[in-house]
Amino acid sequence: MSGERIRFDPEELRSFTSRAFSHFGIPEQDASLAADVLAYSDEHGIDSHGVARLKTYVDLLEAGRINPRPKLKIVREKHAVATVDGDNGLGLVVGPKCMEMAIEKARLHGQGSVSVCHTNHYGAAGYYPLMAVRQDLIGMSMTNTSKGVAPFNGIEKMLGTNPLAMGFPTGDEPTVLMDFASSTVAYGKVEIAWRAGENVPLGWCLDEHGRPTTEPERMMQGGALLPLGSTKGGSGHKGYCIGGIVDIMTAVLSGANWGPFAIPFAIDSPQSEKQVGKGIGHFFGAWDVEGFRDLAAFKSDLDAWIQTMRTTRHLPGGPEVQIPGDPEWAAYRIRMKEGIPLQVAVVRDLERIAAVLGIPAP
Amino acid sequence: MSGERIRFDPEELRSFTSRAFSHFGIPEQDASLAADVLAYSDEHGIDSHGVARLKTYVDLLEAGRINPRPKLKIVREKHAVATVDGDNGLGLVVGPKCMEMAIEKARLHGQGSVSVCHTNHYGAAGYYPLMAVRQDLIGMSMTNTSKGVAPFNGIEKMLGTNPLAMGFPTGDEPTVLMDFASSTVAYGKVEIAWRAGENVPLGWCLDEHGRPTTEPERMMQGGALLPLGSTKGGSGHKGYCIGGIVDIMTAVLSGANWGPFAIPFAIDSPQSEKQVGKGIGHFFGAWDVEGFRDLAAFKSDLDAWIQTMRTTRHLPGGPEVQIPGDPEWAAYRIRMKEGIPLQVAVVRDLERIAAVLGIPAP
Repeated sequence: MSGERIRFDPEELRSFTSRAFSHFGIPEQDASLAADVLAYSDEHGIDSHGVARLKTYVDLLEAGRINPRPKLKIVREKHAVATVDGDNGLGLVVGPKCMEMAIEKARLHGQGSVSVCHTNHYGAAGYYPLMAVRQDLIGMSMTNTSKGVAPFNGIEKMLGTNPLAMGFPTGDEPTVLMDFASSTVAYGKVEIAWRAGENVPLGWCLDEHGRPTTEPERMMQGGALLPLGSTKGGSGHKGYCIGGIVDIMTAVLSGANWGPFAIPFAIDSPQSEKQVGKGIGHFFGAWDVEGFRDLAAFKSDLDAWIQTMRTTRHLPGGPEVQIPGDPEWAAYRIRMKEGIPLQVAVVRDLERIAAVLGIPAP
Repeated sequence: MSGERIRFDPEELRSFTSRAFSHFGIPEQDASLAADVLAYSDEHGIDSHGVARLKTYVDLLEAGRINPRPKLKIVREKHAVATVDGDNGLGLVVGPKCMEMAIEKARLHGQGSVSVCHTNHYGAAGYYPLMAVRQDLIGMSMTNTSKGVAPFNGIEKMLGTNPLAMGFPTGDEPTVLMDFASSTVAYGKVEIAWRAGENVPLGWCLDEHGRPTTEPERMMQGGALLPLGSTKGGSGHKGYCIGGIVDIMTAVLSGANWGPFAIPFAIDSPQSEKQVGKGIGHFFGAWDVEGFRDLAAFKSDLDAWIQTMRTTRHLPGGPEVQIPGDPEWAAYRIRMKEGIPLQVAVVRDLERIAAVLGIPAP
């Protein structure tokens, strides 16, 4: 976190967000679902994916680029799997509904997968597996995003930061939640360094000529992010593999725009004229633990796994080994007590939204 | 490749391997299946996972540590998913049979998943998704392996190199195949540098005190490999997440030994006295493309995806952007013409095996 912050009551932010969405004719239930997805990020410390993005969703709704009342359509279905056309709705609404379908399929068939086309930015990937975990299932979500990452050996943007998230139900220990982009870092991390006038480590970015750079502005002006692993020595081809898996499962499999054709989230980002599908793509998966193993045995073993990993030796005085999800649960405990700390720039955005829409500011 | 090589006819190697397995009472069909899995690696340039490992499988069979005639048992099943007990068989036999089950389930239910406990080293992870791809399905495989990798922030081995592989069917273009360990590099890569008397890049290994090292022997003497991403700056927590996903899906879900308790492959590797499950674990998945989308449309879009990624700009004079699987298909074309190039040390191993078992050397 950098710069001054103002703290907000989580409930107030939720109802403000929900009211903003309702303003555009989004049905109340959908508006509060979308608000819940954004609130998840703010409440769990993922500042880049919460109300800081409300302005962009509002811009897109205002410009008529998102359908406020989508009619989700099952394009194809075979027992445990399906493809859904999101009818150009908010990803924040299409996403939870399709994850719910994957969960229902897992209840019936042992597992379920739903690939989604014709959808939009769905918030933090980690929200969706947690829906499954609350019902004692294993959950997964992926989405493709607009181009920002160079394939391994390449020097131009061809893939999105294409995140993958998985969650696992536990017993006494906190839920295990993995949620990560397939690039070394997300675009936002480079942007934060740029705002602070700082350099970034080698291995995050290429400049406009495809050379490794530590200067954020060189990446932002026509360069590209690098896939997880960065270089040959770091096995950057593996991050490229993960980005490719996400792009194919979300977009090629559903009939959405893939690779460099994925539609940008920000309204003023340049958009490919060529379209190879509908909207962007998501993929949701759920597995019924009880189809594989006694749930109590799984949970107790996963608790032991967590305790074992947590006690791994670490450098004296250095950081301890965490369990994926720990940072989210730590942020939640603090923020639900002390409020959501928003950057002043984000607060100004929310005030402008309130003024334009004629609703009370949070 | 380093050092002198002797070329062998692929068919001769296959039948030698098969005969060696048969010697231990493995039924002929299983022996030739296991030989096929090893041959896949040798024929596709994955030298570390082919007949170079036959000696270790033979050692384990000779010591009675692997059951030559396993009776696979479905421990639990729910439509699209199941857990199988591999009855301590060769992973090279248990693996293909369980992948076949996942494929059958995908045909019936749209997708299938099979988690496997009580099994052993299954060769190259990429073999299994290709079984699905040959039937126009999407395939996935994962396995846990014995400890070699430190969790992010940790300084001791707690997870295996836990690989993940996925394959996708294409039209005119070659199959897309991702196959990668969740550590920055596999143990074998460090061993190769050590034999050559070379240093390795920073970010691959920690020494016995948990400090980054470029000296292979420091890692090999009580140090650890690092997860993909290596450090905080490289997002090493993401490689740890992937290693964790693989460990949980393969071992915690099936009831196999997880994390530091996973049973080592090499017969002389120290083994944890504590056991938390049965054998090691695999996980196999298959998705029926036709359950999501018209197969021809999927294939034609994936062909276009491949052509698009391949034409990404690259540094003048530098390497071109490849598609995951390209190195395997390139090696295959050469090796099926020129023969399998084996290191002299591997050839000597095979000759010793032949002498001990009383079968003709390849």
